[in-house]
Amino acid sequence: MSTPDPRLLSICDNYVRAVREKNVAAFLSLYHPTARVFDTWSTWSYEGVPARRQVIEKWFGSLGEERVAVMFDRVQTTVAGDLASLTARAVFAAIAPDGAELRSMQNRLTWVLQPDGDAWKIIHEHTSVPLGPDLKGLLARE
Amino acid sequence: MSTPDPRLLSICDNYVRAVREKNVAAFLSLYHPTARVFDTWSTWSYEGVPARRQVIEKWFGSLGEERVAVMFDRVQTTVAGDLASLTARAVFAAIAPDGAELRSMQNRLTWVLQPDGDAWKIIHEHTSVPLGPDLKGLLARE
Repeated sequence: MSTPDPRLLSICDNYVRAVREKNVAAFLSLYHPTARVFDTWSTWSYEGVPARRQVIEKWFGSLGEERVAVMFDRVQTTVAGDLASLTARAVFAAIAPDGAELRSMQNRLTWVLQPDGDAWKIIHEHTSVPLGPDLKGLLARE
Repeated sequence: MSTPDPRLLSICDNYVRAVREKNVAAFLSLYHPTARVFDTWSTWSYEGVPARRQVIEKWFGSLGEERVAVMFDRVQTTVAGDLASLTARAVFAAIAPDGAELRSMQNRLTWVLQPDGDAWKIIHEHTSVPLGPDLKGLLARE
């Protein structure tokens, strides 16, 4: 692990932008078609982008007038030729049309990435929160 | 992702053995000293092996006469020179002295690994379960 690699930080920027703009196509284009995704919510595993399209459409479609601001911090990256990893805290905040932050939560995020031309694609994503003693997820933002 | 790489599957075997034998030193030796671990339980992040030693000692020490059998399946690996990833389902089963399985649960597991001499070391681990609609972790084995 080392100082975050700028090539990988641009994926963070693209993720933030795709979520802010509720752009399903831009969001899914960050992933390799066969990406395995272990998501924080509900589903054990998504095997490939087609399995995930509907849930992203539903997420963005459910937001109404709200927007979601994503912030990455505590980022660590490792790059070795044709493979890279990125780990971080990702904060997701719901933003009202007037710019007010309505609520927020934090996730642990892991990405494994492979080069695809000039860009990197996510071949694996794992987001989660730890469980507390009552087995409930510890979602609260620190 | 492809057929699991045998060099990485040996890490799974070593993990299984260290847990079965409740061997803290063997368990921790699987990790790079600075490994970042996002664990299923309680703690947001462990930054480095020293931060984790106590919780592993506590885990193994709490088992009494029980043993823990770990089983990995749905394994996918990607190896690219000096970096590798492994994703899997890990089932943890509590085993009574007479060999009976007392209870079990499943985790999603992600490892990022780097070579260290002839072996691979885990530089990042992320284990979790998804959250259900009541925000509780979905731990039950399928």
